[in-house]
Amino acid sequence: MAMSWRHLIVGSPLRTAEQVHQRLTKTKALAIFSSDALSSVAYATEEILFVLVAAGTAALNLSMPIALTITGLLVIVAMSYYQTIHGYPSGGGSYIVAHENLGVWPGLVAAAALLIDYVLTVAVSITAGIVAIISAAPELLPWRVHLCLLAILLIVWGNLRGVRESGTVFALPTYAFLFVFLALILTGLIRLATGSLSAASVPPLPVGIGGSEALTTLLVLRAFASGCTAMTGVEAISNGVQAFQKPEADNAGKTLIVMATLLGVMFLGITFLAHALGVVPVDHESVVSQIGRQVFGTGPLYLALQGATALILVLAANTAFADFPRLSSILARDGYAPRQLANMGDRLVFSNGIAALAILAAALVVIFGGQTHGLIPLYAVGVFLAFTLSQAGMVRHWHKTQERGWRVKAAINGLGAVATGVVLCVVVESKVTQGAWIIVLLIPALVALFRSVHQHYLDMREQVSLPEGEMSRWSHLKVAKSHKVVVPISGLNRGALAALQFSRSLSDDVTAVVVDVDAAATTRLRDSWEAWGIDIPLVVLESPYRSVARPLLAYLEATDRREPERGTAVVILPEIVPARWWQNLLHNQTTLLLKAVLLFRQEPNGAPRVVINVPYYLRS
Amino acid sequence: MAMSWRHLIVGSPLRTAEQVHQRLTKTKALAIFSSDALSSVAYATEEILFVLVAAGTAALNLSMPIALTITGLLVIVAMSYYQTIHGYPSGGGSYIVAHENLGVWPGLVAAAALLIDYVLTVAVSITAGIVAIISAAPELLPWRVHLCLLAILLIVWGNLRGVRESGTVFALPTYAFLFVFLALILTGLIRLATGSLSAASVPPLPVGIGGSEALTTLLVLRAFASGCTAMTGVEAISNGVQAFQKPEADNAGKTLIVMATLLGVMFLGITFLAHALGVVPVDHESVVSQIGRQVFGTGPLYLALQGATALILVLAANTAFADFPRLSSILARDGYAPRQLANMGDRLVFSNGIAALAILAAALVVIFGGQTHGLIPLYAVGVFLAFTLSQAGMVRHWHKTQERGWRVKAAINGLGAVATGVVLCVVVESKVTQGAWIIVLLIPALVALFRSVHQHYLDMREQVSLPEGEMSRWSHLKVAKSHKVVVPISGLNRGALAALQFSRSLSDDVTAVVVDVDAAATTRLRDSWEAWGIDIPLVVLESPYRSVARPLLAYLEATDRREPERGTAVVILPEIVPARWWQNLLHNQTTLLLKAVLLFRQEPNGAPRVVINVPYYLRS
Repeated sequence: MAMSWRHLIVGSPLRTAEQVHQRLTKTKALAIFSSDALSSVAYATEEILFVLVAAGTAALNLSMPIALTITGLLVIVAMSYYQTIHGYPSGGGSYIVAHENLGVWPGLVAAAALLIDYVLTVAVSITAGIVAIISAAPELLPWRVHLCLLAILLIVWGNLRGVRESGTVFALPTYAFLFVFLALILTGLIRLATGSLSAASVPPLPVGIGGSEALTTLLVLRAFASGCTAMTGVEAISNGVQAFQKPEADNAGKTLIVMATLLGVMFLGITFLAHALGVVPVDHESVVSQIGRQVFGTGPLYLALQGATALILVLAANTAFADFPRLSSILARDGYAPRQLANMGDRLVFSNGIAALAILAAALVVIFGGQTHGLIPLYAVGVFLAFTLSQAGMVRHWHKTQERGWRVKAAINGLGAVATGVVLCVVVESKVTQGAWIIVLLIPALVALFRSVHQHYLDMREQVSLPEGEMSRWSHLKVAKSHKVVVPISGLNRGALAALQFSRSLSDDVTAVVVDVDAAATTRLRDSWEAWGIDIPLVVLESPYRSVARPLLAYLEATDRREPERGTAVVILPEIVPARWWQNLLHNQTTLLLKAVLLFRQEPNGAPRVVINVPYYLRS
Repeated sequence: MAMSWRHLIVGSPLRTAEQVHQRLTKTKALAIFSSDALSSVAYATEEILFVLVAAGTAALNLSMPIALTITGLLVIVAMSYYQTIHGYPSGGGSYIVAHENLGVWPGLVAAAALLIDYVLTVAVSITAGIVAIISAAPELLPWRVHLCLLAILLIVWGNLRGVRESGTVFALPTYAFLFVFLALILTGLIRLATGSLSAASVPPLPVGIGGSEALTTLLVLRAFASGCTAMTGVEAISNGVQAFQKPEADNAGKTLIVMATLLGVMFLGITFLAHALGVVPVDHESVVSQIGRQVFGTGPLYLALQGATALILVLAANTAFADFPRLSSILARDGYAPRQLANMGDRLVFSNGIAALAILAAALVVIFGGQTHGLIPLYAVGVFLAFTLSQAGMVRHWHKTQERGWRVKAAINGLGAVATGVVLCVVVESKVTQGAWIIVLLIPALVALFRSVHQHYLDMREQVSLPEGEMSRWSHLKVAKSHKVVVPISGLNRGALAALQFSRSLSDDVTAVVVDVDAAATTRLRDSWEAWGIDIPLVVLESPYRSVARPLLAYLEATDRREPERGTAVVILPEIVPARWWQNLLHNQTTLLLKAVLLFRQEPNGAPRVVINVPYYLRS
C-alpha cells in the first residue's frame, strides 16, 4: 500500500542497468551548467545597492566601480577554471582537486565549503525566485515563505523521480531568461540614449530605508562582498566536463568562455541601468523588477522578464540538487560521511542526499523568513573558499605534471588563487558580524565531523574484519551444545504458547519468567500454567517500580553468572503482531522495548545476547 | 546516561507501595477543586463584552442581564451537582454517571466531550493567564505564544514529577485570588458609591473595535454562550468526593455551595463594575486589568490582582492535568483507549496521558496564536454536553434507586438536564459558525474511535486466548526436530561469523545467502568463503533494483514452498551494534529494515516466521 503510493508519486523502480550517460551539445550544456551562474545577476546588483543605501542614496554611485571590479575578478576566475577543465578533463570538482593535490585536510575543507554552498544556493535562488514572482504579484507577499517551501518541494519531487529529460526541458528557461534579460538591457540603453527614459542621478531616499550609516571603507567592502555572489556557479562547468561531446575539454572550455562573457555583460548592464534609473532597493519588489517596469512598462514583456527570472532561479536551485547528493555520495564512498548517502534509491538517484539538502535549505528559508538579504552574507564564504583551494590545488597540479608551458598555467591559476583568496578575506572580514561567523564556525565543525566519521569506520573495520591468521579456525569453532533459554511472558495466550513451543525445539534448559506488575494477572498465569500442565519452570520476578525491563535484565545477569562457561542465555520473545500497522499503537509494545533494551545493552562479560523473536499474527 | 538525566528532571522512580491517599479539609478542598471554576471569572465577563461590542458600545448594556441569567443557571447546575455528590459519594464523573445509567454510547459521548473539554481548559486558562501578565507588562506582548508554551511546559514538569504537596501549595494562590478579587469588587463598589470613581454609561467606541454588526438575537445568544464559560469546572467537586474527610458527601456538598456562591458573587460583581466603569475589551489588556487599574491604580494591589489571576489560571490548567490522564486511564482500563494510557510511570503518574494533553493543548495555543477569544466558541460545547448527560443520568439513577424523596431529587436533576440541554443547543446554534463545528464533528469521531479500539481489543482477546477445550494439549504439541535456517549476510566479518556459528547450534540445515548489490563485494565474499573453508552452502541472490529485502523475501518464500511440512524457515540476522547510539546513524541499518520487514510481513501460509538476532558489539 505504502509502496504503491510511493510508486505513483516518484515512479516505479529503475534497474541498475538503466543508468544512462547522455552527452550534451554545447548549446544544451550551456543551458544546464550556467543556470546557477547566470541567475545570480537577478540578485547580485540588488545586494550591492542594499548595502550601499545604508549610507544614503549618494553612496549608490559606487555601484558601477564595484561591479567593474567584480567583472575583472570574474575574468581571472574564468581563466583559472578554463585551465582546470583542461587539467582535469574527467571532472575537477574543488574537493577532488584539493584532495589530490593539497592533501586530505584541504580536500575536506573544500568539501565542507561546497556542501554549505549548495545549501545556500538553494536557499538564495529560491528566495530570489519567489521575490521575482512577488514583485509582479504583490498580493502574494504574505505567502513568501510558503511559496519558497512549495518550490523546494517541487524540485525535490522532480529529483526523487530522477529528472531524465535534462537537456531540452532545461534549455528553454535558460535561453528565455538570456533573451529577455539581454532585451531588457538593450531596450533600456536605447531608451536612455534616445531620451525616452529619464535618467536620475541621485534619487530621493524612500521613507524608512537606509541613510543610517557612514560611507566607510568597511561598508564599501561589504557591498563588494555582497556583489561577489554574482560569481557563484562559475565552477559548474569544470565539474561536468564528461557530459560534453568529444572533444570534451575543448567544448567545455568554449562553453565556459561564452558563459563568463554573458555573465559579465548582463551583470554590468543591469548594474548600469539600476544606477542610471536611480533604482533604490525596497522590500517588496526586486531591483530587476523595478528596472523592468521602467523599461518595459507593465505589459507582457515585463511579465516574461519576471517569469523567466523566477524559472532560471528555480533551475539554479535544481543544479544544487544534483551537486550536493553527488558530492556527499563521494564523501560517503571515501568514508567521510554516513554510508546511507552513497545508496542509490529506486530511481537511481541519491535519495538521502536529496532529502538532506531539501531539509537544510527549507530550514534556512524559514529561519530567514524567505529574505534573500539575510542569506547573502553566509553565501560568499563557502564559494570563495572552494575557489581558493581549487586554484591552489591546480598550481600544485601543474607543478607535478611539469608539462609544456606549465609555468604559465601555474601562474594563471596562482593569480586566481591569490585573487579569490584576497576576496575570501574581504568577505569574511566585512561580513563576519553580519552572519558569516556561522560559516566560519561551521566549516571546521563539519571537517571535524568528517574526520570522526572516518575514524569510526576505520575502527569498525578493524574490529569486525577477520585477520588472515585466524583463517583455518572455522572447523574448530566451538558451538554450545545446549543453550540456556529464557522466555519472558505476560500471560498464557497463543503468542506465549508459540514461543514456549519454539523454545523446546532449541533446548531442554528453558525457563519462563513473568514480571509481576499486575498481581491478579500473575495469579491467573500461575493457575493456567498448572491447568495446562506445562513442564517448563515459571519464575515470577518482583517489580516494585513497575518496570518490566529492569527485573528481567537483573534475572538474566544472575542466570549468566551462575554458569559462565555455558555462555549468555538466549532470550525468546513472543510478539503479537496486529494485522494493520496502526493497531500497533493500541499495544503496549513491551516486546519492542525489550528487543531494543537487550540489543543495546552490552552484557558485563562482553558476550552477545542472542534474541529470538517468535511472532503471532492477528487476523484483521 | 539518558536514565540519569531523566531522574534529575522528573525525580527518581517511586515504588507502587508509595501511592498515598490524602484526605482534605474543606478549606484545602475548596482551593484544590475550585480553581477551575473560580478562575473563569477572569475571562467570562470579557467574553460577553467581546461579542456584544460588535454591535457597538450601546449593546454593552446587555451584559448585566446576561450575567444574571447565567448566575440563575449556575444555581440550577450547582443544585444538580449537590445531588450527584450525595448519589455518587464514590466519585461521580460524567463518564461514570452517564455510562452506568444511560448506557455505553452516552458514556462514551460524555467521555469524548470531557476529554475535549480538558484540552480546552488548559488552552483557555493558559492563554487567559498569560493575558493577565501581558496586561501588566505590555512589553511581553510579542512573546504571548512563547509564554503560553513555557507555562504548559512548567505544568507538565510538575505533573511528571507527580505533584505531591497538593493541598498547601495550591491553597495559597486560590485564596490570594479570592481575597484580591473580592477586594477589587468591594473597593470598586465603595468608590462608585462615594463618587470617587466616575461612572460612564455608554463609553465611546475605540478605533478599530466593534460596531460592525447589528444587535440581533443571535448576537445576544452568542454573548450568553460565551459567558457560560464561567460555569466550567463546577462539576470538579463531584469527581473528587473521596478526597474529602468524613463524612465525605456532606463536606463535599457544603464546599460546592460555598464555591458556587463565591463564583456567582464574583461574576456578577466584576460584570457590574465593567458595566459601570464603561470598560470596552481591547486586544492587549484584559477587562479585569482595566477595572483593576481604575479601581486600584497601578500600585502593588493592581500587581497583586494580575499576579493572583495569572496564578489561579495556571492552577486551573493544572487540574486538567490531573483529570485528563485519569479519565483516559479509566477509558484505557475499560478497553476504549490505547492501553499505554493506563500505564503508571516511574513517578506513579499517567505519563502518557500527561504528554498527550500537553501536546494537544500546545497545538491549540499555537493554532489560535495564544488568543483566548478564538478558543471560547470551542469551549462551552463539551462542558454543557457533559453536564446534560450527567444530569440526565442522575434522573435515571434516582428512578432506579426509588429511595425516599427520589421524585424531588429526580425533578431537580431533570431541571438541571433540561436547562443545560437548552444551553447546549443555544451554544451550538449560536457558535457553530465561529468554530463550534469542530467540536460537533470531533465528538462523534472520538466516539467512533473509542468503539473501534474496543472492537480491536475484543478481536485480539478472542484470537489469542486459549479455549478451555484445548487445555490438555501441551504435552502433545508437536515440535519440529530440525529447523530450516537461513542466514543473510553482506560479507564475511566477525558479525557474520557469530551468526553462522549460532546457526550451527540450532540446526544442520543452514544456508547462508547474500544479496548481490555490489558485485565486487560478492566476489570478495565468495573468495573468503572458500579460503575459510566454511561448510555451509552460500547462495547469491540477484537484485536488479538494488533492494535487499525483496530478493530475500522471494527466496524465503521459495524455500518454504519446497518442504511445507517442515514449517517456515528460521532467519538468523547478524547485527553489528556500535558502542554509542549516535554511531547507528553511520550504518546502513539493513538489519533493522529486515527485522521490520520480516516481522510485519505475514507469510502466505499464515505461519509465523521466527527471527533470531545475533548481535556483535563494537568497542567504543
